[in-house]
Amino acid sequence: MKAKTPKESLTILTEIVLPNDTNNLKNLFGGQLLSWMDRSAAIAAHRHCKRIVVTASVNNVSFNHPIPQGSIVTLEAKVSRAFTSSMEIFVDVFIEDQTIAGKKTKANEAIYTFVAVDQLGNPINVPAIVPETPIEKARYEGALRRRQLSLILGGKMKPDEATELKALFLKEEQKA
Amino acid sequence: MKAKTPKESLTILTEIVLPNDTNNLKNLFGGQLLSWMDRSAAIAAHRHCKRIVVTASVNNVSFNHPIPQGSIVTLEAKVSRAFTSSMEIFVDVFIEDQTIAGKKTKANEAIYTFVAVDQLGNPINVPAIVPETPIEKARYEGALRRRQLSLILGGKMKPDEATELKALFLKEEQKA
Amino acid sequence: MKAKTPKESLTILTEIVLPNDTNNLKNLFGGQLLSWMDRSAAIAAHRHCKRIVVTASVNNVSFNHPIPQGSIVTLEAKVSRAFTSSMEIFVDVFIEDQTIAGKKTKANEAIYTFVAVDQLGNPINVPAIVPETPIEKARYEGALRRRQLSLILGGKMKPDEATELKALFLKEEQKA
Amino acid sequence: MKAKTPKESLTILTEIVLPNDTNNLKNLFGGQLLSWMDRSAAIAAHRHCKRIVVTASVNNVSFNHPIPQGSIVTLEAKVSRAFTSSMEIFVDVFIEDQTIAGKKTKANEAIYTFVAVDQLGNPINVPAIVPETPIEKARYEGALRRRQLSLILGGKMKPDEATELKALFLKEEQKA
Amino acid sequence: MKAKTPKESLTILTEIVLPNDTNNLKNLFGGQLLSWMDRSAAIAAHRHCKRIVVTASVNNVSFNHPIPQGSIVTLEAKVSRAFTSSMEIFVDVFIEDQTIAGKKTKANEAIYTFVAVDQLGNPINVPAIVPETPIEKARYEGALRRRQLSLILGGKMKPDEATELKALFLKEEQKA
Amino acid sequence: MKAKTPKESLTILTEIVLPNDTNNLKNLFGGQLLSWMDRSAAIAAHRHCKRIVVTASVNNVSFNHPIPQGSIVTLEAKVSRAFTSSMEIFVDVFIEDQTIAGKKTKANEAIYTFVAVDQLGNPINVPAIVPETPIEKARYEGALRRRQLSLILGGKMKPDEATELKALFLKEEQKA
Repeated sequence: MKAKTPKESLTILTEIVLPNDTNNLKNLFGGQLLSWMDRSAAIAAHRHCKRIVVTASVNNVSFNHPIPQGSIVTLEAKVSRAFTSSMEIFVDVFIEDQTIAGKKTKANEAIYTFVAVDQLGNPINVPAIVPETPIEKARYEGALRRRQLSLILGGKMKPDEATELKALFLKEEQKA
Repeated sequence: MKAKTPKESLTILTEIVLPNDTNNLKNLFGGQLLSWMDRSAAIAAHRHCKRIVVTASVNNVSFNHPIPQGSIVTLEAKVSRAFTSSMEIFVDVFIEDQTIAGKKTKANEAIYTFVAVDQLGNPINVPAIVPETPIEKARYEGALRRRQLSLILGGKMKPDEATELKALFLKEEQKA
Repeated sequence: MKAKTPKESLTILTEIVLPNDTNNLKNLFGGQLLSWMDRSAAIAAHRHCKRIVVTASVNNVSFNHPIPQGSIVTLEAKVSRAFTSSMEIFVDVFIEDQTIAGKKTKANEAIYTFVAVDQLGNPINVPAIVPETPIEKARYEGALRRRQLSLILGGKMKPDEATELKALFLKEEQKA
Repeated sequence: MKAKTPKESLTILTEIVLPNDTNNLKNLFGGQLLSWMDRSAAIAAHRHCKRIVVTASVNNVSFNHPIPQGSIVTLEAKVSRAFTSSMEIFVDVFIEDQTIAGKKTKANEAIYTFVAVDQLGNPINVPAIVPETPIEKARYEGALRRRQLSLILGGKMKPDEATELKALFLKEEQKA
Repeated sequence: MKAKTPKESLTILTEIVLPNDTNNLKNLFGGQLLSWMDRSAAIAAHRHCKRIVVTASVNNVSFNHPIPQGSIVTLEAKVSRAFTSSMEIFVDVFIEDQTIAGKKTKANEAIYTFVAVDQLGNPINVPAIVPETPIEKARYEGALRRRQLSLILGGKMKPDEATELKALFLKEEQKA
Repeated sequence: MKAKTPKESLTILTEIVLPNDTNNLKNLFGGQLLSWMDRSAAIAAHRHCKRIVVTASVNNVSFNHPIPQGSIVTLEAKVSRAFTSSMEIFVDVFIEDQTIAGKKTKANEAIYTFVAVDQLGNPINVPAIVPETPIEKARYEGALRRRQLSLILGGKMKPDEATELKALFLKEEQKA
């Protein structure tokens, strides 16, 4: 199977925050954003492997910026790394200011893992990823560490086998 | 502020998986489940503190069991621990079999963190939690370790300050 | 078929009243509440008999308390009595105040009748009900009178055969 | 206030039954139909009095005909009688067959009561109804009997004061 | 196939403009109105020919009157002319004022074209239209001119063959 | 006001066709596509002028390719020309095949006109457009002809003043 670049799976969703999407402060519900993130990540994963894909896990997602009603929200999802039948997808969330320049601000970031399956739901292989840009390379490398953490938390790997993850406790994490 | 028990925030959502909630395998979308989880967690957090609450983060969520169209899905959310203005909430997801006995099976579990805020969006204090049952106590104790991990991943704590988390690398995690 | 208790069919729905659910006074639409009630009653009926169930009728429902936007609405549905293939379900609707004590107030009550059917839509038998609590017993006994009234209004029973219902005109109705 | 005819409040809704509106037999959910009925009745009540209207009660509704996915459903709502600040509305539900003649069949019927309120939610007077056709006259006359039944069931009238309703037990009800 | 009148396909939709349907001025989104128009036109086309119908094109639609949140919107759709397997449908959109007289005002008008197809999606013949009222006759006659314009714009007819359309450049268009 | 390029308003929506979006052939409803097109066009118009924008008209839209349930639909909207306070927006609709190469196919095209308004709904000026690519230039030039046609059809311009449009009847239209 021919390897593919993250760019080939780039998926863009543009949404408007409607009244039903907001809480009592008139800011976007976290759950609505999680749902949009999942949808963009699913399409990116599908574009990478052209198979049925199912959500396997959601990694730590932080909601740092409240997103007010009426905002235009842009989600950009790209596969950051592939492992046999699973794919890690980064979703970057942007809002744009209302000046004529219209600068985009990053509001959020999430990491989803999807698995490619056949019609019976059994995992099947997916193409590898060849990262191109510096940020794509950094995310590609971090993916292994995140995968070890996920396996440990799920009880599927012993902590002392997680060589990559131990680096976390020796030096400060450089944010991707 | 008087401490409260997890039971006082118990929130139950019962949903039916409709055609629009499903992927090509006719199983529930991960994103739809994330959205329901967030809603149940938000109501549990609100019941604990009776203030406006906003999603702060979602911890590792695994989707182990596909949930087919037509399933009845029950979500049970309870505050597991409170820290100043933030609350950790466990969401347990159940499906039930179609025999007359109707045994409930656990399909999923997720951990959300919410923050209580005032009308301007500034954090405000919430009551403490007094766990009662063994599982509530185990989740209460694990909450500190999860919080340290979250702070490290977010770059807000140095790994060598995370005394609780280091235990993760000395002994196998016992699943709450 | 082994009889079951009302408790075994207890179904809890928790909903938040969103902007699209409200009228010009920013109170919950009656139609939205009727739809939620029907959903909770359908799941309770299904839990009782584990078969496909269809709405047969809705008895008199009164909307006494306006429910404002943003309210948390809890619906509790339980089968109150079973007749051959039909089940009567009570739905109690609660809202909770915004003090730290968070007292629940009953806002509404409705009675639905569901019928269990096979894959072709033909009625099939359901288990009997054994009421346990005083309120369950009162509702169980009232069910026969309500069924007679429903049959008379539908032209399927002659009034002078409705022995239970005649009591209605001899003594004041005691509310279940 | 000038009296109005039922025709002046006639409200027609035409809906298509979509996959999300149906149960496991692929027939329309009772709850979805109740919600459409409430919406058509609310608009009819509003057209009669041109004030904010709120659902007061739903009378016995029977679901006799399953309505399959893809059906075109037509709801016709008209005010049948007005009492001070309340209005009784009949909703007739039709489906049409798929021959070129396209005969409409009546699938259901429901009776809703709405109350006109001011901006503070207090009841206000509405115009009287002058029925024109035979069926409008029959429904107008039956409304008083239904109102007495509703007041008795709600514990607001003594059965021996319900002179109209007693007729129910002397002669067979003629369906409006 | 027996010809039919426009009246036989008359389809009425009544909608309330909810918060999620509105833009920042709290007026109805154009896209929501287009979707309602398409639905009413599809049902009218289906009523005319009793076959599966698919949207073929939307002609020039102008949005002249903003429609505020809370408005009651009535759409009336009727087939204006049929050509072999295609049908032109006029959709008239009305809003009503809030006085007790409740005068209806025309807010919009759109012209849709639908095609009747069999189960494989191939076009099939539909009944002809016999217009009755003056406005139905005017729309029937204008349909040929609009069809020529549509074919020219789609590159399927040469302008000098469009004899009807040339009239457009000789005399002022009389609005149907 | 500084002129802007079409690229600066580029808006991408990615949608999945769900069961509720489809007709009896399990293809996307025209009305749902019209609604998505309107949303993408509205955001593109807003990005161009950073003001409130309202739909003014929809030009001839043809639905040539049925889009089956489960398809991933990508909409790309860009402002093609600006006139004082109005903007013409082209929306290109793509679907992608399910091979690993994943070629995008153009399924549809639509032209919307939006007007920029202030908080009272009065038109306000927008920046001019400077087209860059050949297709942007072709669309920019065609916009004047389309505007004349729209004004004539709306009875706001006499046909003999429409110098650009007359070309339509002298030479074959070259599709933008």
